[in-house]
Amino acid sequence: MKKLNQESIHGLIPKRKDDSYKGDYGRILVIGGNESMGGAIIMATSAAVNSGAGLVSVATAKTNHIALHARLPEAMVLDWNNRQALAQQVKAASVLVIGPGMGDSKDSLELLKSVLSLVTENQQIVVDGSAITMMAEHQLSTPKAKTIYTPHLGEWERLSHLKPSEQKESLNQTARAELNATVVLKQHRTEVYFEEDVWKNQAGNPAMATGGMGDTLAGMIAGFLAQLENSKSAVLAAVYLHSHIGDNLAKKQYVVLPTHIIEQLPFTLKEFSEN
Amino acid sequence: MKKLNQESIHGLIPKRKDDSYKGDYGRILVIGGNESMGGAIIMATSAAVNSGAGLVSVATAKTNHIALHARLPEAMVLDWNNRQALAQQVKAASVLVIGPGMGDSKDSLELLKSVLSLVTENQQIVVDGSAITMMAEHQLSTPKAKTIYTPHLGEWERLSHLKPSEQKESLNQTARAELNATVVLKQHRTEVYFEEDVWKNQAGNPAMATGGMGDTLAGMIAGFLAQLENSKSAVLAAVYLHSHIGDNLAKKQYVVLPTHIIEQLPFTLKEFSEN
Amino acid sequence: MKKLNQESIHGLIPKRKDDSYKGDYGRILVIGGNESMGGAIIMATSAAVNSGAGLVSVATAKTNHIALHARLPEAMVLDWNNRQALAQQVKAASVLVIGPGMGDSKDSLELLKSVLSLVTENQQIVVDGSAITMMAEHQLSTPKAKTIYTPHLGEWERLSHLKPSEQKESLNQTARAELNATVVLKQHRTEVYFEEDVWKNQAGNPAMATGGMGDTLAGMIAGFLAQLENSKSAVLAAVYLHSHIGDNLAKKQYVVLPTHIIEQLPFTLKEFSEN
Amino acid sequence: MKKLNQESIHGLIPKRKDDSYKGDYGRILVIGGNESMGGAIIMATSAAVNSGAGLVSVATAKTNHIALHARLPEAMVLDWNNRQALAQQVKAASVLVIGPGMGDSKDSLELLKSVLSLVTENQQIVVDGSAITMMAEHQLSTPKAKTIYTPHLGEWERLSHLKPSEQKESLNQTARAELNATVVLKQHRTEVYFEEDVWKNQAGNPAMATGGMGDTLAGMIAGFLAQLENSKSAVLAAVYLHSHIGDNLAKKQYVVLPTHIIEQLPFTLKEFSEN
Repeated sequence: MKKLNQESIHGLIPKRKDDSYKGDYGRILVIGGNESMGGAIIMATSAAVNSGAGLVSVATAKTNHIALHARLPEAMVLDWNNRQALAQQVKAASVLVIGPGMGDSKDSLELLKSVLSLVTENQQIVVDGSAITMMAEHQLSTPKAKTIYTPHLGEWERLSHLKPSEQKESLNQTARAELNATVVLKQHRTEVYFEEDVWKNQAGNPAMATGGMGDTLAGMIAGFLAQLENSKSAVLAAVYLHSHIGDNLAKKQYVVLPTHIIEQLPFTLKEFSEN
Repeated sequence: MKKLNQESIHGLIPKRKDDSYKGDYGRILVIGGNESMGGAIIMATSAAVNSGAGLVSVATAKTNHIALHARLPEAMVLDWNNRQALAQQVKAASVLVIGPGMGDSKDSLELLKSVLSLVTENQQIVVDGSAITMMAEHQLSTPKAKTIYTPHLGEWERLSHLKPSEQKESLNQTARAELNATVVLKQHRTEVYFEEDVWKNQAGNPAMATGGMGDTLAGMIAGFLAQLENSKSAVLAAVYLHSHIGDNLAKKQYVVLPTHIIEQLPFTLKEFSEN
Repeated sequence: MKKLNQESIHGLIPKRKDDSYKGDYGRILVIGGNESMGGAIIMATSAAVNSGAGLVSVATAKTNHIALHARLPEAMVLDWNNRQALAQQVKAASVLVIGPGMGDSKDSLELLKSVLSLVTENQQIVVDGSAITMMAEHQLSTPKAKTIYTPHLGEWERLSHLKPSEQKESLNQTARAELNATVVLKQHRTEVYFEEDVWKNQAGNPAMATGGMGDTLAGMIAGFLAQLENSKSAVLAAVYLHSHIGDNLAKKQYVVLPTHIIEQLPFTLKEFSEN
Repeated sequence: MKKLNQESIHGLIPKRKDDSYKGDYGRILVIGGNESMGGAIIMATSAAVNSGAGLVSVATAKTNHIALHARLPEAMVLDWNNRQALAQQVKAASVLVIGPGMGDSKDSLELLKSVLSLVTENQQIVVDGSAITMMAEHQLSTPKAKTIYTPHLGEWERLSHLKPSEQKESLNQTARAELNATVVLKQHRTEVYFEEDVWKNQAGNPAMATGGMGDTLAGMIAGFLAQLENSKSAVLAAVYLHSHIGDNLAKKQYVVLPTHIIEQLPFTLKEFSEN
């Protein structure tokens, strides 16, 4: 495996072109957040916005709209039960995230199927959390869009059918190839499986071991995909910087909350764009 | 075109008179924010409040009231479907903003028509976002109030009937004259068309290329109109300072969010009021 | 008139006794906030909590509960239409505030009458905003509790039946005596009328001329009344410190928002408690 | 009594193991928050999250969900009337808190009984506020889980049947033994009763005498129990650090609000984990 460290992402965060506008930085649709897990969708969306995405919309349970606006007026909202409006938003997006706080109810499954059937090869999609579990359990195929799965180890077991003891680089890579996707395998030292190579994150720390970190990473990946031309660069930079910020904050914090990382994003991205 | 830079607005932000009260700083009504785009109205309203307006009310979809209060207790709210109360507030306002997050539904169109018919020559109105689109598509006339349109290039095309290639200073100025209004034409270097001259903003940067910046500018223009005697000064100062704050924040931030600019307003206005 | 300045309140903010508990710092009930003006009740309540009151409850329209909790988990809430629960809370309070954002609807009037009839001579009540207007218009008597009115000049005209030109110290004092209350007459230099003397605030500045300042002052007065043994000291200290904090913030801010003053309270009170 | 001071908790906050994940830091369920006291559950939950617990869920009145998410996206929510889902969450939790803002209605009593009957000896439970009062009034037995009661003096009187004059160390200890639990007896200098010894907190100050401090302490105890192997260490560290943070903040603040303490937790825990 290649080591993913500060050098690896040297130069990956571009300076923004002077004469650019929000349309140049992508249009993201984040789908998730049932009645219990609205926080997950708030964190994923905030991460996308603070990463610098041009326009961010959220399709979530109606009960989450108010809290989302109260925290993040920069995002637009949509009732995920309004399937017609959702279909329009899916088509309009350049990058989608599906899964954070989505749950695995019958309604969520139907929603997932519907979104997967709508996305096209010109789009990119991050599949996270319960969306991964539902795809595994219902044997749904990777959609036509360029797909990034972000499973933790348990979700990967379900998706890859590899037992924990079998989850070694070569078998993981075979499973990834069958999925025809990029896989961000979240763990103590997260591994990233691309078609051509595999990377192991060198950053990260146990102060980040708290709920919501995965949702935040999913939102960051989407935010970076929306802005960077090269999607491999986007995934690597998001994975590394998520941990890098966490490492910096952990110098003074016993626990690093997802919202702490999100707030730091504009500042850290600035630093990396200048090197 | 005249260059709009720090010198241009020298002296435009007045020191407040010692013996003044909130009534001296205007009464603003911000109208917009449908069920999907409540964030837009939160940002526009926050910009007006943080600019120093005396009293700010918001007419918006009921679903946005809680998030608005949670972020900004300084503003009063009104259900935009309560047309009787709305009419009273329209009459009471010295400055109105209509359009941020308004959408272009049949209801929104009716609301727009109703407000435009109510405003008088003693008032000032900022027409933004979907309100511009609806005025263009339904050929609504500029209202009797002193009117400032704040289109981006696509909205300007619809409003002026000028194709992108035709959007040069002289044709823009002719279109503006036909509208009998001031036009803030938002773009990489925003242009401001008054009856007597045209200005090109020298400030601004691509870190500001993110959703909500236009809503924030609309709110700032209203806030400044509410306070400054000279409305031309108000528009120029708002356009310049919006970008000036963005430039300062972009020294340390890869993306500058609208809420970051809004928080900075009281401090930057203080600096400019002392020069 | 006596000058109300930093010297006047020297020593009025006591150090807290080491062996004290929240019951020693009063129980406040804040009543107000209709469906349009929920922000007013949020600001008044936040001011009471940040002043150091022991326990603070709010009776307000149900629609304001969520925003209040989102900003201020330290306060308890009550639907103001639940008159039985409200009566219990009125009886339990040591200090009440009635009026911020209350409106003057028929329901509000009934609520006001009900509260005024319930309070006793052992309680203190701050009567603010629309509650003052309703008392004037419906000729309601000052309640049995020790009462502090906080009118602005227009409200004072309604309450005292003095025309602006008649609002001089001696006539104001006569009107105050008829009301059998303390009067905080809000204006450029706020005047405070006690039975034995009259004070004129020397602090304050035009950056504070913005909506919500009065609500904030009402909450502060209640917070101070709840803690200080001497109610005259409480009123004077609240009036002065509200402006004193505003003066400090105005050194760097063009507009000082009520929420800025509220955040500063614990720090400024600390300074004054040590002199 | 042993003195509980900085030395007492030396070494109790462990460094986190490098190769750990959120499952290693416990799964907390916080139960409470009726329609009036949603703030209590927000504070308790925020304290648990900011203490570093791995996963935190909240069962509370539906009306509190939005404010909770708006303040704390890191926690998951559950309608406490959904008894089936609640039972599942109770079983899944390693640590429970019951009582903050719970009220003592008939519904709350039923809920309490149901939870007490479901917990097992492998779990830990913090019983706080109205849950204590209901247990006393309805003579409910300490549940099978390792139990920590956190009464203030009035609640302790109800629970122990000891009059204030009888609440001395030996009788308290006897009452504690009958309860078969740990007792955190909140007061000016809080006392902690374990089976083998009794501790008296040396930290704390009157700036902390404000509503919500107890809810915050209950959440901290749960957060520490979820992470530390030794539950006695967890209780002692939580009690001490709650006051220690309050002491530090009180150097500059006249009143220390619960939310101020909560924000400080990650930083103070870091300091103590390094000594």
